[in-house]
Amino acid sequence: MSVHFRKLALIGIGLIGSSIALAARRQGLVDVISVMTRRQETLEEARALGLGDIYTRDAAEAVRGADLVILCAPVGAYDTLAQAIAPALEPGAIVSDVGSVKEHVVKVVAPHLPPTVHFIPGHPLAGTEHSGPSAGFPELFAGRWCVLTPGSDVPEAQTARLAAFWRAMGSNVECMDAAHHDMVLAITSHVPHLVAYNIVGTVADLEAATQSEVIKFSASGFRDFTRIAASDPVMWRDVFLTNRDAVLEMLGRFLEDLSVLQRAVRNGDGDSLEAMFTRTRAIRRSIINAGQETAAADFGRPHE
Amino acid sequence: MSVHFRKLALIGIGLIGSSIALAARRQGLVDVISVMTRRQETLEEARALGLGDIYTRDAAEAVRGADLVILCAPVGAYDTLAQAIAPALEPGAIVSDVGSVKEHVVKVVAPHLPPTVHFIPGHPLAGTEHSGPSAGFPELFAGRWCVLTPGSDVPEAQTARLAAFWRAMGSNVECMDAAHHDMVLAITSHVPHLVAYNIVGTVADLEAATQSEVIKFSASGFRDFTRIAASDPVMWRDVFLTNRDAVLEMLGRFLEDLSVLQRAVRNGDGDSLEAMFTRTRAIRRSIINAGQETAAADFGRPHE
Ligand SMILES: NC(=O)c1ccc[n+]([C@@H]2O[C@H](COP(=O)([O-])OP(=O)(O)OC[C@H]3O[C@@H](n4cnc5c(N)ncnc54)[C@H](OP(=O)(O)O)[C@@H]3O)[C@@H](O)[C@H]2O)c1
Ligand SMILES: NC(=O)c1ccc[n+]([C@@H]2O[C@H](COP(=O)([O-])OP(=O)(O)OC[C@H]3O[C@@H](n4cnc5c(N)ncnc54)[C@H](OP(=O)(O)O)[C@@H]3O)[C@@H](O)[C@H]2O)c1
Repeated sequence: MSVHFRKLALIGIGLIGSSIALAARRQGLVDVISVMTRRQETLEEARALGLGDIYTRDAAEAVRGADLVILCAPVGAYDTLAQAIAPALEPGAIVSDVGSVKEHVVKVVAPHLPPTVHFIPGHPLAGTEHSGPSAGFPELFAGRWCVLTPGSDVPEAQTARLAAFWRAMGSNVECMDAAHHDMVLAITSHVPHLVAYNIVGTVADLEAATQSEVIKFSASGFRDFTRIAASDPVMWRDVFLTNRDAVLEMLGRFLEDLSVLQRAVRNGDGDSLEAMFTRTRAIRRSIINAGQETAAADFGRPHE
Repeated sequence: MSVHFRKLALIGIGLIGSSIALAARRQGLVDVISVMTRRQETLEEARALGLGDIYTRDAAEAVRGADLVILCAPVGAYDTLAQAIAPALEPGAIVSDVGSVKEHVVKVVAPHLPPTVHFIPGHPLAGTEHSGPSAGFPELFAGRWCVLTPGSDVPEAQTARLAAFWRAMGSNVECMDAAHHDMVLAITSHVPHLVAYNIVGTVADLEAATQSEVIKFSASGFRDFTRIAASDPVMWRDVFLTNRDAVLEMLGRFLEDLSVLQRAVRNGDGDSLEAMFTRTRAIRRSIINAGQETAAADFGRPHE
């Protein structure tokens, strides 16, 4: 399905917003891109990078005449932003977003929107640990999933248009219920991030001498956690504030399992440990087979 | 310091043993390499790869006449192996190892060794998630640390020789107390691995439908844990059996910290969450500055 939008409004132009701008432009999916962000400094950075055609700090102005609006700001700003854009939205426009949680987004955004627009929340499962307009690149979404969670009132043709837009940027698209999205993401993304932040925090509390050795010797596992824990603090704060129930549910399961492992370590129960460590390998293989990971050693990190 | 050994005996020829063989050969550090392993199949694989000059399944035969012996088998096999090689060790030889724990190694190996050899336990902080003789590559140790934990009875000149050997393979060498090594590694490596195995295990327990979505959407954090949890089960079983006290101590701290984060999520305490997520960034920066990690986005994973 070929897809085209006249005017794409990007509300927020960090890693995700700038990657959409670059990918949509490269694939010729839009005529005009308008870029809105909060700070003048960021706006100038976006302008210098040539990410759009129109630059403004006024969200309403950015969305005027747009047939596709994508919120790419931290989820904590959505409420205010939705309120700001609502009066200026063009009837028939698709309003979407890229936020990492979905039920909460529906709750805070939908009530502000006029019934004349199609609200289709989205979440591209792609990212790096870098932030800001210069962090984006047009290949970010290639081969990655984008989840859409349209409400039951959205015409299928509109969802199909948005899906085609993401596919044209290289994504695989999957539609699901917002609540289900939040549960799956709690275990694939939110709990892993919480745990990674936590272990880095445990290290931050060690005496300075030990800490410097931990840094020296971080290649033995720890540094992979620091990568995960290097993501934007505001974005992650918002995730945990807005996906609380699913996170607490999955964290509870994680902690139950960990106390079993802890007991096996305490009791020197080698058979249980080995069985546990063997069983997890199948999951790794499935991920590589599903094309979601490189099989190259050490992630393909360069070895000098 | 230029360094040379007549005969290097590698007891075990997996990822680490084969990497030592390739690096020592490339740097011209040894005249003869003898390779010992448990299974005939592995021995033939090592032979086909040309990793050594002498191939045998008899540990005593492998070490005969060697002035450098390095145990590169799983730590669980050390007791038996030390017993087997002891009578055949050449007076004046350096006996070392690469095991991921050090106090336990001293405890099980030292009592078997004759007083005429120099026992200098070692641990190269380098590895990938792959195993076996074909997983090795000569650059594995380049830019990585190797910790040596010589006892107080070892002449400094002998430790210096072994340190020079590792430096010639590209490592940075640090000497420390075996117990201190085990504590630092518990937090940089052992607890991270336990936690990674655990979260992958939690996923393995989900209903099949959710599990397949978790695999699809693994790029959002989870797959990095599966990489860590893809390491050899036997090696990791041995680590947790042999570094129990340090692991339980660090795991206890980790769990204490996690219950604080859990409470912040439950209470919707955004300020604490953001503060915690911000504070951990400094550690990440230190690791990149210490040259222990690439700053490239997404670990430098290829983006098609
Ligand atoms: N990073 C990831 O891995 C990832 C993956 C999938 C989805 N997401 C989602 O994508 C969204 C953006 O993430 P990102 O990684 O692109 O973040 P980012 O690089 O930090 O960019 C955020 C952008 O939003 C702007 N912004 C912040 N507050 C704003 C406000 N009140 N009004 C308007 N603009 C505002 C920022 O500009 P200023 O400098 O002007 O504040 C910046 O342009 C989040 O909702 C996140 O959940 C992120
Ligand atoms: N992998 C890492 O990331 C890493 C990093 C630092 C240190 N280490 C340490 O390095 C050592 C080896 O690890 P690795 O990753 O090289 O493991 P690996 O790739 O699985 O290789 C282990 C080798 O030991 C042999 N072996 C197993 N049991 C044996 C026995 N009873 N007697 C003699 N040989 C035996 C295996 O051969 P068979 O097929 O013949 O059994 C294989 O050649 C471990 O002590 C580990 O703690 C590993």
